[in-house]
Amino acid sequence: MKIGDRYTESRKIIDKDIMAFVELTGDNNPVHLDDEAAKKLGFKGRIAHGLLSTSYISAIIATKFPGPGSIYLGQTFKFQAPVYLNEELIYELEVTAIKDGKPIYTLNTVIKNTDGEVKVTGEAVIRVPRSL
Amino acid sequence: MKIGDRYTESRKIIDKDIMAFVELTGDNNPVHLDDEAAKKLGFKGRIAHGLLSTSYISAIIATKFPGPGSIYLGQTFKFQAPVYLNEELIYELEVTAIKDGKPIYTLNTVIKNTDGEVKVTGEAVIRVPRSL
Repeated sequence: MKIGDRYTESRKIIDKDIMAFVELTGDNNPVHLDDEAAKKLGFKGRIAHGLLSTSYISAIIATKFPGPGSIYLGQTFKFQAPVYLNEELIYELEVTAIKDGKPIYTLNTVIKNTDGEVKVTGEAVIRVPRSL
Repeated sequence: MKIGDRYTESRKIIDKDIMAFVELTGDNNPVHLDDEAAKKLGFKGRIAHGLLSTSYISAIIATKFPGPGSIYLGQTFKFQAPVYLNEELIYELEVTAIKDGKPIYTLNTVIKNTDGEVKVTGEAVIRVPRSL
């Protein structure tokens, strides 16, 4: 892992994901469940929970970039635009800083759609084992 | 909602929750699934995914404090200590700031255990409908 290293993955949030997150958290806000309720609030249709769309960021960190053994120290999110049901998303992670003398990395974490619309911006801070 | 308003809820992360989060995100890191693997990494046993423990914060905001219609603008998390499987957790949310002239609130968001050990600290920023 060095500054500038990047990882990209695409992913779609489907009905099954939203229903699982509703079951898991109890957040059954109609904006996630009902197109008409979402439209009344000014959305184009059902939207994903903010922390559902971002949950894949931690999964990428833990399993792929950099992978198992990395420890999650912190994360920030700014929710810039709604993530819609069945919308194709692109997750981009990039190493932007390394702590002097320590295996502690800052990653820029962005979720966009395929039109380039930025959905979520943020930063992760992780500690990485020497072996990765 | 005014500065100093607080909400507290307790919650335990059980095996079913971890398995649902594994299924949802694909993060099947052994530290979440296997006591022995977790102990090899210096933990006392299986730990919850960081963004699983925090997912209830957004659920509280969306359904209870302040409730439906609130829009999640941002969230920060610092993961201070591991959250263990079946550990009793206390979620504390407190209004710490209101944007001048706008219904935009900052909430301090903390997860502790019942011994007062701080697990996760952070801040949420939300926009609240005038009706709440």
